[in-house]
Amino acid sequence: MTGGLAAGTAQAAPPPGGRARARELGVAPGDLPTGDHNAITDVAGVRVGQVTLVEGDRVRTGVTAIVPHPDNVFQDKVAGGVFIGNAFGKLAGSTQVSELGTIEAPIVLTNTLSVARGVDGTVAWTLAQAGNGSVQSVNAVVGETNDGALNDIRGRHVTEDHVIAAIEAARGGVVAEGSVGAGTGTTCFGWKGGIGTSSRVVGDFTVGVLVQTNYGGSLRVDGVPVGEELSPPSMADTSGDGSCMLVVATDAPLTSRNLERLAARAVFAMARTGSSYSNGSGDFAIAFSTSPHVREAPGSAVQDAKYVPNAGMSGLFLGALDATEEAIYNSMFMATTVTGNGGTTRHAIPLDRVRKLLRKYGRG
Amino acid sequence: MTGGLAAGTAQAAPPPGGRARARELGVAPGDLPTGDHNAITDVAGVRVGQVTLVEGDRVRTGVTAIVPHPDNVFQDKVAGGVFIGNAFGKLAGSTQVSELGTIEAPIVLTNTLSVARGVDGTVAWTLAQAGNGSVQSVNAVVGETNDGALNDIRGRHVTEDHVIAAIEAARGGVVAEGSVGAGTGTTCFGWKGGIGTSSRVVGDFTVGVLVQTNYGGSLRVDGVPVGEELSPPSMADTSGDGSCMLVVATDAPLTSRNLERLAARAVFAMARTGSSYSNGSGDFAIAFSTSPHVREAPGSAVQDAKYVPNAGMSGLFLGALDATEEAIYNSMFMATTVTGNGGTTRHAIPLDRVRKLLRKYGRG
Amino acid sequence: MTGGLAAGTAQAAPPPGGRARARELGVAPGDLPTGDHNAITDVAGVRVGQVTLVEGDRVRTGVTAIVPHPDNVFQDKVAGGVFIGNAFGKLAGSTQVSELGTIEAPIVLTNTLSVARGVDGTVAWTLAQAGNGSVQSVNAVVGETNDGALNDIRGRHVTEDHVIAAIEAARGGVVAEGSVGAGTGTTCFGWKGGIGTSSRVVGDFTVGVLVQTNYGGSLRVDGVPVGEELSPPSMADTSGDGSCMLVVATDAPLTSRNLERLAARAVFAMARTGSSYSNGSGDFAIAFSTSPHVREAPGSAVQDAKYVPNAGMSGLFLGALDATEEAIYNSMFMATTVTGNGGTTRHAIPLDRVRKLLRKYGRG
Amino acid sequence: MTGGLAAGTAQAAPPPGGRARARELGVAPGDLPTGDHNAITDVAGVRVGQVTLVEGDRVRTGVTAIVPHPDNVFQDKVAGGVFIGNAFGKLAGSTQVSELGTIEAPIVLTNTLSVARGVDGTVAWTLAQAGNGSVQSVNAVVGETNDGALNDIRGRHVTEDHVIAAIEAARGGVVAEGSVGAGTGTTCFGWKGGIGTSSRVVGDFTVGVLVQTNYGGSLRVDGVPVGEELSPPSMADTSGDGSCMLVVATDAPLTSRNLERLAARAVFAMARTGSSYSNGSGDFAIAFSTSPHVREAPGSAVQDAKYVPNAGMSGLFLGALDATEEAIYNSMFMATTVTGNGGTTRHAIPLDRVRKLLRKYGRG
Repeated sequence: MTGGLAAGTAQAAPPPGGRARARELGVAPGDLPTGDHNAITDVAGVRVGQVTLVEGDRVRTGVTAIVPHPDNVFQDKVAGGVFIGNAFGKLAGSTQVSELGTIEAPIVLTNTLSVARGVDGTVAWTLAQAGNGSVQSVNAVVGETNDGALNDIRGRHVTEDHVIAAIEAARGGVVAEGSVGAGTGTTCFGWKGGIGTSSRVVGDFTVGVLVQTNYGGSLRVDGVPVGEELSPPSMADTSGDGSCMLVVATDAPLTSRNLERLAARAVFAMARTGSSYSNGSGDFAIAFSTSPHVREAPGSAVQDAKYVPNAGMSGLFLGALDATEEAIYNSMFMATTVTGNGGTTRHAIPLDRVRKLLRKYGRG
Repeated sequence: MTGGLAAGTAQAAPPPGGRARARELGVAPGDLPTGDHNAITDVAGVRVGQVTLVEGDRVRTGVTAIVPHPDNVFQDKVAGGVFIGNAFGKLAGSTQVSELGTIEAPIVLTNTLSVARGVDGTVAWTLAQAGNGSVQSVNAVVGETNDGALNDIRGRHVTEDHVIAAIEAARGGVVAEGSVGAGTGTTCFGWKGGIGTSSRVVGDFTVGVLVQTNYGGSLRVDGVPVGEELSPPSMADTSGDGSCMLVVATDAPLTSRNLERLAARAVFAMARTGSSYSNGSGDFAIAFSTSPHVREAPGSAVQDAKYVPNAGMSGLFLGALDATEEAIYNSMFMATTVTGNGGTTRHAIPLDRVRKLLRKYGRG
Repeated sequence: MTGGLAAGTAQAAPPPGGRARARELGVAPGDLPTGDHNAITDVAGVRVGQVTLVEGDRVRTGVTAIVPHPDNVFQDKVAGGVFIGNAFGKLAGSTQVSELGTIEAPIVLTNTLSVARGVDGTVAWTLAQAGNGSVQSVNAVVGETNDGALNDIRGRHVTEDHVIAAIEAARGGVVAEGSVGAGTGTTCFGWKGGIGTSSRVVGDFTVGVLVQTNYGGSLRVDGVPVGEELSPPSMADTSGDGSCMLVVATDAPLTSRNLERLAARAVFAMARTGSSYSNGSGDFAIAFSTSPHVREAPGSAVQDAKYVPNAGMSGLFLGALDATEEAIYNSMFMATTVTGNGGTTRHAIPLDRVRKLLRKYGRG
Repeated sequence: MTGGLAAGTAQAAPPPGGRARARELGVAPGDLPTGDHNAITDVAGVRVGQVTLVEGDRVRTGVTAIVPHPDNVFQDKVAGGVFIGNAFGKLAGSTQVSELGTIEAPIVLTNTLSVARGVDGTVAWTLAQAGNGSVQSVNAVVGETNDGALNDIRGRHVTEDHVIAAIEAARGGVVAEGSVGAGTGTTCFGWKGGIGTSSRVVGDFTVGVLVQTNYGGSLRVDGVPVGEELSPPSMADTSGDGSCMLVVATDAPLTSRNLERLAARAVFAMARTGSSYSNGSGDFAIAFSTSPHVREAPGSAVQDAKYVPNAGMSGLFLGALDATEEAIYNSMFMATTVTGNGGTTRHAIPLDRVRKLLRKYGRG
């Protein structure tokens, strides 16, 4: 949309330009099944809301909000953990998550210079929520990547209201991917990047991942060296700096320590896609559990809990690796070409060419 | 002042209510000499600016900015490091400091719910600075403590303009202490806390510390159990949650690793004063070096540097321990009584009583 | 004893030379009550065993083992966490503790160059234990301080058998303090240091601490500047490098994350005693919970647990702070003068002089 | 060899069984050139020594030592850093490396239950070295993986003498790969794993990597899904627990902070090969710089240094990613079939089959 707020309802719109999800091209990492929507929203209760800002020639940015559960998240904090791959980035809120093992507000993604607005919007929304009338401290977790190639990032066009709108637009089901929300202006391997998502079912549990891709290297798709064969028309060098925000949700009851470990696998999975993990990248993964069994129960001296022991983690780790890899492909395959600030264009990766390369290299 | 901005020039005003610095009471931790002003500004080039917000019955808050050097800090980043004592707090920017070892903007302190405004103000100020016309990424380091007992913190009265005003008010020399800037509404050991500073000369180098005190426990002054003998009139329980932000500056050329270690000593020093390091505290220390010998030289493949090796750190560690302890006392001894939101009062600790206790326990 | 193994039964021997515990001098940090023995063994099930090696003119070293519970610790691992104050030290096993949140063997303390023997002894003992016939991986947690001033440390006189003997000597009740076990050859503030212990009862739970003191600074006892008034006859400089190993036990059911936070308070407490936290110090704290409610249950997909939420931690933190401070005093006050390698002597701190200083400064 | 010490001279022996390095199969990750030997020893001054223990039916283990430079490493410590991927492992010495940023002894790899012997051997060797007569503290860095499937690991057959022999056998040039040294008994993706090495030239600098592979997942070779097509005869499940030790050397002058970041890329590179990063893996990377420009100069108050700034790191990161990937393939492609404890066999991956798969999937 142009010049306004993209409501969550817009998310189910069919992708323009013949875009498709990775799985439609036969790219389906690993052996684990996906959830119903192959999305982070397959973790029951998790909702995603996005605001896409496309205004005039220069504004190409947005907000993506991941809401951990339908109730008051501040009053009913979820267990959370953060893993840092490379911290050339401005993630807000990570130190409190690491200390207390809790996430108490929707997770918000936006652009680098709008993190403050992300925090302010999240705080304002939380303070105003029913039941939070006496709250005086809110830890907002806000991540970002830098969309300054396509977006007038210095203009800081994201407002507190945009952030609140994204949170309020959050819903379950299909998640809009590609050039939407916080992925409106991002670049990945020289092509248009954006928002992608995927999920895996691991025994009784589900692991869902949502990514905001904005990084480089030499693209591999299911091991096929796409980056060596196919260059974006507008970029000679695709290896440059960039970032990737990774959000991992699960309904498995995990302590914060094991959520940190789960988050690490999301960062590791970037290597499967050819990430160069360059100096300028801000690669952070945030993981949380929706399970009520690992939520803090502040009123009790000793609380009852249930959690997956260490020995039960390997399957969930695999789910996070596979879902992250696929979410990254989805972010690119669903992205549409965007021309923005100063006439710069980031092209959608041509899926027909990708299909040919997959065949050339023995897939499909 | 009421309803406006306290310029940096107001900082040298004599303290009302017979306040005094710790040293005037004979409390002078350790054997190392202080710098000229016994302040963080004794580290050449470091400047402090503060905005104090006292408006009507409810607004008791502010901003304190520490500017590392007089030039363009973004273009000429200083080496920096962060140490986390307890992270029930919203410090922004720490992960990039840890990854890259640099600080590229003034360090800003304010209240918990105004961190976003602190970031936005710092970013806006940096983007607008001469020479930064193409900057698209700024890592703002903004710390906070929670002044919600005296201040209408939910009102988020700190604006981007207040933050910019604090940065622009920064100057060297005497630093206003007590109930000013980010310390306007804070509480320490049940008494009025606030901003404090101190410094030590360690051989050729200076270590300066500035604190924003807002924590509890059982107050010790130079080892004397003041907290056991003297209770604030308005608080029965002084041990409750709270936080302390600690900023350590030095002109010693230190790598980021050794700056992290220096920062740790500031957190450790809180124990000398009787901190309970409770669950709800946000105790973070940020250290930076003003030395040009450890600044990043981005244009070079290999840069020349000079730094203090590990074996030379012990003296600087001691300087940080002693200066932090004294800065904490200064924050309380210079603080004046403040009545704020809902008629709540935090009393200035009565220095005559402190003097008597010091004598009773063999000091002075 | 000389030239052999000090069995655990020797631990209850009355201290020679008019030594006394801190509490007998009226030094009793904080308001919390102690456990029955004011020792780490007040945490039910925790046992301590020590081997003291005093042989000829040169060997002054030993081993102290802390056994978390009476059953097979490898099969029934306890929750554990580590906090690092300053890591000029050779602590073995910490990274696995941090990753998995478990401790699976007795914790062993010894001298710097005997850590390998500590590991080998712990591994050998664990492999040989009934029920461990198929074990192929053991994470030994072995800490150290450097007793090279009194002990022929290069001779590496601690053997695997000594370590096993210390583990097997472990029992509950009174713990030998001062110049015993891993504290046989250590130095603290220029005086003879050693092993010390203390405990606090915090509501339904107990926190116990055991320390191996070998560090410097300017000694404070209950805030009294003993170090400024009293110098050891044999050392001009008491501020030099050194280390302190800190072991914290509790029966409170704590997750590994909160055990790490509890461990941090032990490191912070060193500041109360005047630690200089110098470059060369190896200050590590290891915390574990004996509670069965937080032990890993490897056979289950999801395990039941009970734990103290974050909001319940502050009291336990205070217990760890106070017990650590007192354990450090106990390590010195119970230590006896030792002459060792090259005729070097470390004198027991004269308690009559300490008593006078306590009175001079208003205590007792 | 059987029942004794494999001297370094044995390393250049031609690999039995038609083994080949990855590059001979056309597998050469990335575009950067290799050093002369495509080995960690391409970093000038770095030497590798190995002892292979093959005794009777049950002993299949060994030691691999990486010596950073030809001079006294203790007296002339190199800058170092450690990154932890998953710490189900017993790496010794990492905390001091992280604190002080230095490595002061040869890095030793062996099996899980022989880490103590690795430490003891390294300490003994260092204490005995000319010029170290007064040394009382040595930080040995010893890593491991668990070779218990092929080796009688509980027998702890590695001795202090074996470790010293490995260090003394160290030399430059070609490095023996596959079923040698610390890789004698390891398993990788169900096939025989072992020692592998590779290097990259990045501008004026070289990055070399040596790996000890013992992990699982679903093997990918240059993106080709070998693990899906080819199963080892003796293992149904190749995804199980396991570990990988990664040693990264460079002559680029890097501070410890940037060495930690370089080490991280080695862990990330494991994802390219299909690692499952399971719960039970001990994936640690140790990086060091041989450059004299970043060595500690203890005698000086301020030392001169030269280092690569952050902005110069991306190329080195890529070199570490590519060299690690290739070193892992080399460890498998050069490994020979080993039958060991209890008659268990780990087969060498059949290179003719791998070649066919590479062709099937469009390579070569």
